[in-house]
Amino acid sequence: MKATVSAPALIALDWGTTSLRAYLLGADGAALDTRASSAGIMNLPAGGFDQAFEKTCGAWLDAHAPLPVIAAGMVGSAQGWVEAPYVETPAGADALVAGIVTVKASRGVAVHVVPGVLERGVLPNVMRGEETQIFGALASEPSLGTSDGALIGLPGTHAKWAFVSDERIERFYTFMTGETFAALRDHSILGRTMHPSATHDEQAFVRGVDTARDAGDAGMLATIFTTRTLGLTGQLSGEQQPDYLSGLLIGHELRGLNEVLTREHAALAGKTLRLIGSDALCDRYRVALSRFGCHDAPTVAQATEHGLYRIAALAGLVAAPVRTA
Amino acid sequence: MKATVSAPALIALDWGTTSLRAYLLGADGAALDTRASSAGIMNLPAGGFDQAFEKTCGAWLDAHAPLPVIAAGMVGSAQGWVEAPYVETPAGADALVAGIVTVKASRGVAVHVVPGVLERGVLPNVMRGEETQIFGALASEPSLGTSDGALIGLPGTHAKWAFVSDERIERFYTFMTGETFAALRDHSILGRTMHPSATHDEQAFVRGVDTARDAGDAGMLATIFTTRTLGLTGQLSGEQQPDYLSGLLIGHELRGLNEVLTREHAALAGKTLRLIGSDALCDRYRVALSRFGCHDAPTVAQATEHGLYRIAALAGLVAAPVRTA
Repeated sequence: MKATVSAPALIALDWGTTSLRAYLLGADGAALDTRASSAGIMNLPAGGFDQAFEKTCGAWLDAHAPLPVIAAGMVGSAQGWVEAPYVETPAGADALVAGIVTVKASRGVAVHVVPGVLERGVLPNVMRGEETQIFGALASEPSLGTSDGALIGLPGTHAKWAFVSDERIERFYTFMTGETFAALRDHSILGRTMHPSATHDEQAFVRGVDTARDAGDAGMLATIFTTRTLGLTGQLSGEQQPDYLSGLLIGHELRGLNEVLTREHAALAGKTLRLIGSDALCDRYRVALSRFGCHDAPTVAQATEHGLYRIAALAGLVAAPVRTA
Repeated sequence: MKATVSAPALIALDWGTTSLRAYLLGADGAALDTRASSAGIMNLPAGGFDQAFEKTCGAWLDAHAPLPVIAAGMVGSAQGWVEAPYVETPAGADALVAGIVTVKASRGVAVHVVPGVLERGVLPNVMRGEETQIFGALASEPSLGTSDGALIGLPGTHAKWAFVSDERIERFYTFMTGETFAALRDHSILGRTMHPSATHDEQAFVRGVDTARDAGDAGMLATIFTTRTLGLTGQLSGEQQPDYLSGLLIGHELRGLNEVLTREHAALAGKTLRLIGSDALCDRYRVALSRFGCHDAPTVAQATEHGLYRIAALAGLVAAPVRTA
C-alpha cells in the first residue's frame, strides 16, 4: 500500500563549502523533491547567496509559497550568508534552535540558519552541518540519545567523531584525514610513484589499516613514507599505493580514536557506533573498523534531512509533532 | 698558529634532489674550497649530470687533475647519474665502500657513487646521503660508534632518526615532517588563515610541541585542525599559526620517537643524542627536544664532508690514514 504523499511543508538546505543540497520536505518530514548544486559558499554564482538560493529553490517557492526555509552548514559561518555564532558543547537541539539566525532573501523569504557547535579546551573543535546530521540520527534512532551515550562518526574531508549522550553533543574530535590524504597524494613525493586506478583495491587498503594498527606507534609521520618504500621494494604497485595510503591514514584515525576510548576504559573492539556519510566512504570505514574489532557500525540514512526537519519542528517552523526520545 | 694548508686530494659531492654541493678537500680532509649549485637531480641543466658536474668541478679538475671524485645522495638513485643499489641494514662503512658504483664523466674522470641504505620489514626505510653524514659523525666522534649505541637525528623534508652501534647503522625511521608541513600549509584549509611572518615565534612553536606531547594521544590527524580553531577562538594569530603547526608536527615526530624508545625501555628524557642538519633547523629541534626532557643534542658540524672523506679513504681513493674508533 502506497503511503499518501503529504503537502510540501519545508525547504531544507544543506549548504556547505563546495556544494548546496536542497530538500522539499512534506509535513511528515519525507523528501518530496531534491536539488543539488555546486554553489557552495566558496563557489557562488554572480549574485551570490541570493542568486544561488533563487536558482535552486525559486521554482518550489513559486509553486508552494509561503514555505519556511531552514539551512545548516558553512552558510552560517563568518564567510557565509549570515553568521550564526557557534553554540558551545554540551549542545542540545534546543540550544541550536535558540541560536538560529535569519537572513532575508530578496524575494522576502526568511532563511533560518542553524548555528554550528564549538568545543573549547586545549584542542578546540568546531563543526557546521554535522550537528544537524547528528540530531537527524537521534531523530531516527531515539535510543542513541539516552544517557548510555553513543559514538557517531562522520567520515570525510574533516572527519568528525562525536560523543553524544542525554540528547546532547558532549564533545567531538576533528580528524583532517581526507584533506591530509589529498594534500599528500597531490603535493608530496608519495604521489610521484602512484598510478590512478578506477577500482578500489581492498587488499592494499586493509594492509594500510593493519600497518597503522600494528606498527603505527611512531605515528603517522613515520608510516606514510612506506607508501613509497613498499613500492621501491616491489611490494606495492603504483595502482595500489593510493588505497594503501588511504588505509594508513584511516587506520591512524581509528588508532587515535581507540587511544581516546582506552583512556576512558572503552575500546573500538566490540563497540556499537553509527556512521553518517556517503555509502562508499562509510563502507570503507566499516572495513577499517572491522580491523579494529568493531563490527557494528551501520550508516544512518537521510540524517541531513531528518536533522533539518527536526530542528525546524522544534523551532516551530513546521507544525509536525516532534518525536522525543 | 695557522695550520699548513694541505694540497687538494679529493673532490667530494653531496648531490641531492634539489641541490648539488661540492667540496675540494685537502689530504687532511679539510675543505679548501666549496661550490653550491641548484643543479639537483630533478633540476639539471641542459647536458644533464655531466654538464652540472663540469660546471661545478671543472675548474678544480683543470687546476689539480687527476683528483679522485666521490659523490653521495640521490645522484645514486634509479633517477640519478648511475644507480648504486641500496646496501641493507645493519650497514657499516665497509659495506658502503663495497657498494660504490662508478660512472665516467665525459672528461674521463671516474665519479665514485656511494650507495644508500635500505632497511627491510613491515616499515621499509631508505636513505641516500644521510648514511654518509652518519659515518661523518662517527669519524668526528668515534665514541658514537661503540657498542653502547647512539641515536642520530637528521631533521628535514624527510627527517631520519638512526640507531647506530658497533660502527653500523642498525635501523632507522623516516618522518615526513618537513614535507607534510609544506603540503598542509600550502594545500589545505590550514594555510587559509595563516599569515607569513619574517620572524620565528618560539612561543607559538613551543605551544605546538607541548600540545602534541600532552594532548596528542589521538594522533596528528586529530591535533592539526587546532591550528585553525585556535585562530577562530582568538588564541593564535595568523602570523603565529605556521610556527604552531611546525611545533605540532615536530612534537608528534618526537612523541613517536619517544614511543619507540619507550618500547625499548628508554626515553627521550635525559637522553644524549646528536643532530645533523642546518643550524636553524637543529636549533628548532633542540627547543622541541628540551620539551621532552632531552637537553643534550649538539649538532655535528661538517658531517657531510667528513663522511665523504672517510668513505673515500676506506675505498683507497685518498691515501690519508683512516681514523678508527
